Amino acid sequence: MTRIDAQALAALNADYVRCIDDDRLEGWPEFFFAKCVYRITTAENHKRGYEAGLIYADSRGMLEDRIASLRRANVFERHTYRHVVGAPAILGHDGNAVTAESTFIVVRIMRDGSLGVFATGRYFDRVESDADGRLKFRERVVVCDNSSVDTLLVIPL
Amino acid sequence: MTRIDAQALAALNADYVRCIDDDRLEGWPEFFFAKCVYRITTAENHKRGYEAGLIYADSRGMLEDRIASLRRANVFERHTYRHVVGAPAILGHDGNAVTAESTFIVVRIMRDGSLGVFATGRYFDRVESDADGRLKFRERVVVCDNSSVDTLLVIPL
Amino acid sequence: MTRIDAQALAALNADYVRCIDDDRLEGWPEFFFAKCVYRITTAENHKRGYEAGLIYADSRGMLEDRIASLRRANVFERHTYRHVVGAPAILGHDGNAVTAESTFIVVRIMRDGSLGVFATGRYFDRVESDADGRLKFRERVVVCDNSSVDTLLVIPL
Repeated sequence: MTRIDAQALAALNADYVRCIDDDRLEGWPEFFFAKCVYRITTAENHKRGYEAGLIYADSRGMLEDRIASLRRANVFERHTYRHVVGAPAILGHDGNAVTAESTFIVVRIMRDGSLGVFATGRYFDRVESDADGRLKFRERVVVCDNSSVDTLLVIPL
Repeated sequence: MTRIDAQALAALNADYVRCIDDDRLEGWPEFFFAKCVYRITTAENHKRGYEAGLIYADSRGMLEDRIASLRRANVFERHTYRHVVGAPAILGHDGNAVTAESTFIVVRIMRDGSLGVFATGRYFDRVESDADGRLKFRERVVVCDNSSVDTLLVIPL
Repeated sequence: MTRIDAQALAALNADYVRCIDDDRLEGWPEFFFAKCVYRITTAENHKRGYEAGLIYADSRGMLEDRIASLRRANVFERHTYRHVVGAPAILGHDGNAVTAESTFIVVRIMRDGSLGVFATGRYFDRVESDADGRLKFRERVVVCDNSSVDTLLVIPL
């Protein structure tokens, strides 16, 4: 039984953000276990210990639904993201799981080609290997530094 | 024969962007083999499979010429870049070469001290060791998310 | 005696920036030896070899004082940073110390939730292990690309 190390987590993060940024969103739920938590919240709510967030899902099915709705929706201006994720800090090991924190910056690219920093924050993760040895998220809590992401959040972070 | 791993690629990327960002541009072509491809294109063109790009070079000599012209040109406002590159994702191994993808964000610093996100995108690389064991690019394709880089592109990415 | 490698430095940088960005500023001086140098300067001054900088401290006590003043000051608009640091490039080994360079981008988050690239630049570091094997900075010189950080610099970089 090998422990999950920082390099493996960095590779997982690299794959995760490429999946989103390359608009392969249908593949995004595959980074999670069927039974999982995915939550987006703000730094302020996180500090106060509020569970409620901007987005909450507690199963992979909910993540799949989210992508399906997003693909049907046409109300938002088309855009893509580009994430850069810092080196993960391992917070602890718990059986086969590892808990870790990584920081991110997301730049949003609008259809007219303009760029802007859209979000910054931290990922708080609980990662485990599945039966095939692939690393997946049992939990990913996305804590945004800026509350301004709220109304603009379409694509997952 | 050791395989080129993600850590070696990360170190190569770190050296590459420092060379550009520190304005040691004459050293930049040395990151490529004499016979090489360096191409900058947009995400849209890349998706459609267009070979043509914003910049195209198929030898180190062309890269050297590019730097020489840039040093002679005085028409553009002076600026520098600061790249941050994400962890490389290894796509495959082919003999002694490794193919890999990394994401980047480039901030541009204008002479008046103002900062702005200038470009984001992906590097698609084919990296090999030279006779001295130094890693170099056989091919580096720079795919920019934003088409707006077009007319502003002076310094290599 | 194990040499300090790039992975250990990346972990140190990850911890360092989390400490600042999470507003645990009282813990920040602990990343330095009691006898240390912490300096912030601009690329232009650094190039010319000027020692003087925007901020200069040559002991951990001075860093502690800085944080204490910052906590008392109420004149500045509240804000936080989010750093992303690139992979460290090891420049050399000198006894038990390692000298290294890393690039950074700092986004500033204002209280109203707005985001902007605040600073970009390079860390030039001299890192050693303390008696307990924890890595600390003997010297950290922060070279900012943009001179515009000058009057806005409250929180350490």
